[in-house]
Amino acid sequence: MKARVHVMLKAGVLDPQGEAIRHALGAMGFDGVEGVRQGKVIELDLADGASEADVREMCEKLLANTVIESYTVDMG
Amino acid sequence: MKARVHVMLKAGVLDPQGEAIRHALGAMGFDGVEGVRQGKVIELDLADGASEADVREMCEKLLANTVIESYTVDMG
Repeated sequence: MKARVHVMLKAGVLDPQGEAIRHALGAMGFDGVEGVRQGKVIELDLADGASEADVREMCEKLLANTVIESYTVDMG
Repeated sequence: MKARVHVMLKAGVLDPQGEAIRHALGAMGFDGVEGVRQGKVIELDLADGASEADVREMCEKLLANTVIESYTVDMG
């Protein structure tokens, strides 16, 4: 089974990569880009029987820095 | 309006970050993690009227290296 985890910087945490992308898009002539946030996506290929709780534990312990990042888990 | 872009390494392209995560999860006692791929997610806050075609052009020109990466665009 598959699980997909999104890890994003929390609102209010400065995102220099996102800002760099926004600036570059503007310089390339893409108007109307009002904000950009960049995060990570982690796709896990799990043995059958793994639960969302297991994946959340992975997030808490390794995949996300919960001081500055939030995460969401999509199973299946 | 919002758009979300996922950028992943193409199948067959070595993903050292994903391998490092897989190895670390195993060392932490999480059994049954058979594979991990890590990619980027980019959330764009766009002015009204932006189209998926605009976002795909951003991907082709800046957000993804289409030699080794594939991307998907979700609008809304």
